[in-house]
Amino acid sequence: MTVRELPVLDRPEVVACCAPLTTEVLSAPDAKTLAKQFAALGDPVRLRLLSLLATAEGGAICVCDLTAPVGRTQGTVSHHLRILVESGLATSEKRGRNVWYAVVPAALEALRAALATR
Amino acid sequence: MTVRELPVLDRPEVVACCAPLTTEVLSAPDAKTLAKQFAALGDPVRLRLLSLLATAEGGAICVCDLTAPVGRTQGTVSHHLRILVESGLATSEKRGRNVWYAVVPAALEALRAALATR
Repeated sequence: MTVRELPVLDRPEVVACCAPLTTEVLSAPDAKTLAKQFAALGDPVRLRLLSLLATAEGGAICVCDLTAPVGRTQGTVSHHLRILVESGLATSEKRGRNVWYAVVPAALEALRAALATR
Repeated sequence: MTVRELPVLDRPEVVACCAPLTTEVLSAPDAKTLAKQFAALGDPVRLRLLSLLATAEGGAICVCDLTAPVGRTQGTVSHHLRILVESGLATSEKRGRNVWYAVVPAALEALRAALATR
């Protein structure tokens, strides 16, 4: 276990893409944007990583502390984290020799809004 | 446009799989269950189809009325609809010569619950 510096990472701004899909038919561009984020969630290892990020003490976690809980190599974990960051669901920052990751709550809230039912 | 019978399809029972992923670390089996549903949402055509189902007059829509709005063949549309049904996000019923589809709101609500932030 790494000695934690409890870093608070910058949280990128999130723009909700569209109205809930139960209230109006999604446009093709909005569907493409949303699908990328849902696809990022469509993998069990990435979902577990996201829950580790979201529940991390201090709000961020070092990649070095993520390999053991999911039972994957650092290469595999880094690959999945990259997809989470590229989709806007997570954010990362290099501190010293390690990269720290945090969830972007506003991005999860935007997805929740897209799934709202009437 | 088909003459609509405004069918109300049976809605399968939905069991929420897990606590929000921001409140506790997802178990591997829960992550597998959730990932299957998010993967079903991880495609722009399926998201547009789901929004067409959810906004359909009478709460259900014939597959014959879904091909034109998404600009895909009936084969492709049926393939995507099958994935939505298998993941529990939609339900289907054969009526006469056509198959009707409806969204399962409780399944969307369960996914929203999984994404809830603190």
